Amino acid sequence: MKKIGILIVLFFWSFSVVAQTSQKDSLALREIYTQALVKGKSYDWLHHICYQIGPRLSGSANLEKMVTYTAKELETLGAKVWLQPVKVPHWERGAKEKAYIQTSDGNRIEVPVLALGGSVATPPNGIQGNVVEFKSLDALQKADAQQVQGKIVFLNGAMPADFINTFEAYSQCGSQRFSGARIAAKKGALAVIVRSLGTKQDDIPHTGTMGYGNLPDHQRIPAAAISTNGANLLSSLIAKDPTTAFYLKQNCKTFPDADSYNVIAEIKGSEYPDEIIAVGGHLDSWDVGQGAHDDGAGVVQSMEVIRILKAMNYQPKRTIRVVLFTNEENGVRGGHQYAEVSKEKGEHHIMALESDSGGFVPRGFTLMGTAAQRAKVKSWKSLFEPYYIHYFKEGYPGTDIHPLEYEQTLLIGLFPDPQRYFDYHHTANDVFEAVNERELALGAGTMTSIVYLVDQYGL
Amino acid sequence: MKKIGILIVLFFWSFSVVAQTSQKDSLALREIYTQALVKGKSYDWLHHICYQIGPRLSGSANLEKMVTYTAKELETLGAKVWLQPVKVPHWERGAKEKAYIQTSDGNRIEVPVLALGGSVATPPNGIQGNVVEFKSLDALQKADAQQVQGKIVFLNGAMPADFINTFEAYSQCGSQRFSGARIAAKKGALAVIVRSLGTKQDDIPHTGTMGYGNLPDHQRIPAAAISTNGANLLSSLIAKDPTTAFYLKQNCKTFPDADSYNVIAEIKGSEYPDEIIAVGGHLDSWDVGQGAHDDGAGVVQSMEVIRILKAMNYQPKRTIRVVLFTNEENGVRGGHQYAEVSKEKGEHHIMALESDSGGFVPRGFTLMGTAAQRAKVKSWKSLFEPYYIHYFKEGYPGTDIHPLEYEQTLLIGLFPDPQRYFDYHHTANDVFEAVNERELALGAGTMTSIVYLVDQYGL
Repeated sequence: MKKIGILIVLFFWSFSVVAQTSQKDSLALREIYTQALVKGKSYDWLHHICYQIGPRLSGSANLEKMVTYTAKELETLGAKVWLQPVKVPHWERGAKEKAYIQTSDGNRIEVPVLALGGSVATPPNGIQGNVVEFKSLDALQKADAQQVQGKIVFLNGAMPADFINTFEAYSQCGSQRFSGARIAAKKGALAVIVRSLGTKQDDIPHTGTMGYGNLPDHQRIPAAAISTNGANLLSSLIAKDPTTAFYLKQNCKTFPDADSYNVIAEIKGSEYPDEIIAVGGHLDSWDVGQGAHDDGAGVVQSMEVIRILKAMNYQPKRTIRVVLFTNEENGVRGGHQYAEVSKEKGEHHIMALESDSGGFVPRGFTLMGTAAQRAKVKSWKSLFEPYYIHYFKEGYPGTDIHPLEYEQTLLIGLFPDPQRYFDYHHTANDVFEAVNERELALGAGTMTSIVYLVDQYGL
Repeated sequence: MKKIGILIVLFFWSFSVVAQTSQKDSLALREIYTQALVKGKSYDWLHHICYQIGPRLSGSANLEKMVTYTAKELETLGAKVWLQPVKVPHWERGAKEKAYIQTSDGNRIEVPVLALGGSVATPPNGIQGNVVEFKSLDALQKADAQQVQGKIVFLNGAMPADFINTFEAYSQCGSQRFSGARIAAKKGALAVIVRSLGTKQDDIPHTGTMGYGNLPDHQRIPAAAISTNGANLLSSLIAKDPTTAFYLKQNCKTFPDADSYNVIAEIKGSEYPDEIIAVGGHLDSWDVGQGAHDDGAGVVQSMEVIRILKAMNYQPKRTIRVVLFTNEENGVRGGHQYAEVSKEKGEHHIMALESDSGGFVPRGFTLMGTAAQRAKVKSWKSLFEPYYIHYFKEGYPGTDIHPLEYEQTLLIGLFPDPQRYFDYHHTANDVFEAVNERELALGAGTMTSIVYLVDQYGL
């Protein structure tokens, strides 16, 4: 009986410890979210980034400004800040592209295009040719060279609308943008026009990175994205008249690699300083729009993690580090450099968290790690329920933190609602006004909350 | 042993029935959502409503057009359609309001205002007076009449930003808009200026309904909403100089009640025709903007329920009825009339579902009904998980279906993400472009799915 008595006491004692901890954590999360919603700075920072800095492709002066600005702001928050040098690719769009459909009866119908990042230019007077359309990269791969030879290849795979997670739809047809030119070039095409990766029917082309692999310079052909409306028009016109031609002129150029930096800010942990909790987004953006969702949002949300913890006078047990990566868009050199230096130094990240899916209302997290790590995160699910955070699933965490996989770090992606992301992604529409202040702030609160919990309990 | 054997057989039989049902339902929901996302008509209908009809306050010619248009479209879908007559209030804004802050050193600073729905006009030359500010309706209620007498009352309660559910924040300060003029008038105020109900700091005033109760006509004073930026400016100026005055001119007028209609469309049930499942939104809107989120979205999503079921060749067991209510904004006469006529006819609604919280990405449902009814709905939760539908909570279901409460109907509100709603609510910004096609479609899919499940299994 005595034993049972002790067991009962232990049971209730442990229960009350759990209950107290949970109440303390509930209050901490409430304080974090209130900080984000009522006193948040992320929206003001984003305004500065969009309007005072602007688009910031690797190699641009704007990206240098972005490095300086974010480092200064993080220092003002009281974190220890340093810059980590990274050599980044330097590609420039040059003068605005020109493109039109040339009908056989002599009409020229201008259509909106954007050169893909990394593409070569057309000859100075542009390039014109008949068009051969493929509905997927696979169809192009299977085509005979003689179908393609001397023609402009038009890859018109539409991003499917029936996926609930638009990122999965993007994965399914993203390869036509990345690999289309390489494959078409091998079959003797003149150039490649790729349908924009978005489900919205509009006149806004979506740029993005592409690669030629090991194709020799003289075989490289120009590649551009056409808007979804433009793609539909082109498709309907060549269906009626296969002699319809397409004209493209673009002036892009690749320069020697440029100097850039990852911006790193740290608050040292008081109990386990060697256990690093990293949180970040990327500094660079495409050269159109303002890089508001991609990834100004992730940058300011990461900075907000430090601001909120400082505002709460929270002294972390573990080392909390904000890492703002350079060159995600066309190289991921910042992400690789960070992981490499970290490996050399023998650092140990217990968690890395990335926000690079837009500043939309947060739904939860994508998790990559051991079953035990994921289970621990899921055990906190009820703490997040008041904030409508419900998604805790295995999934890809993000491009910049992925290189940290080697050290069995728990990698987490913030998972914002994905419905609107591909209306803005890599377009001129990715501007400050496309971001909602409350949605951005709730994302920052969600990131701070998971950082807080991992700091409290480890993994 | 035989008994046990039978029990085991029964157990596995029942288990396999459950499993089959669940798989059939999974497939049905997938088909519903694909219909909504890929072949949806809700966005096209909304475009017509916003651009070909426009704002449609009770008593306006636009509301009549809306009745005709939606009835015709529902008929085209193959439903039996009828109009239910409703007498509705008729208030008009008249010529655009004018308002400015008059500083004691002679400056006039114009600020954006909108007359509240139901307000009386100012005298033709406007009204001017010193301003007394209150931070809440409660503070006004406690004030001495002499503080208020002969002054313009400025109700400056800010909608709190820290609520996660913005509708709860709205509930907390909505009464200053509805009741401010009635209370201020009794204390001898000249007019009432109310801070707009939104957390965004901008120049867009939010209108909405107000009431004078049984205050006699000669005591009624004008009431208008001021934008949040305007409210901040006014507050700071009167803090510096209490002799700062405010000028308001508005020309609104109440006319005799007008004729309008609820639009009702029905597909008769094959097995339980007397069990009605109703789904709806409201036809009317405020007279500014285009009534896109409020409540064009709810109207087209309800119509889409019928379209999707017809496209699937689905023959309902129970009677499915779309009810498009008139006059939600300033009277709820349509909702009351529908419930009254239904009661007279002895109809039995097993469920009523309303969409009147905007066309944003759906999160789930607010439920009002018996514990058993709510438990049944929650038992379907896992079917909704692939669509990120996670919110199944007791809550207010909606203004138009609420009068059906008397007959123990399960009342359900579609619960879209609430973060952006009060950026648009009752403003000139509530236009087509503020609605995202995918988010709208997912809401329609979610509504159709719950209608399908209740039709299949009853309650």
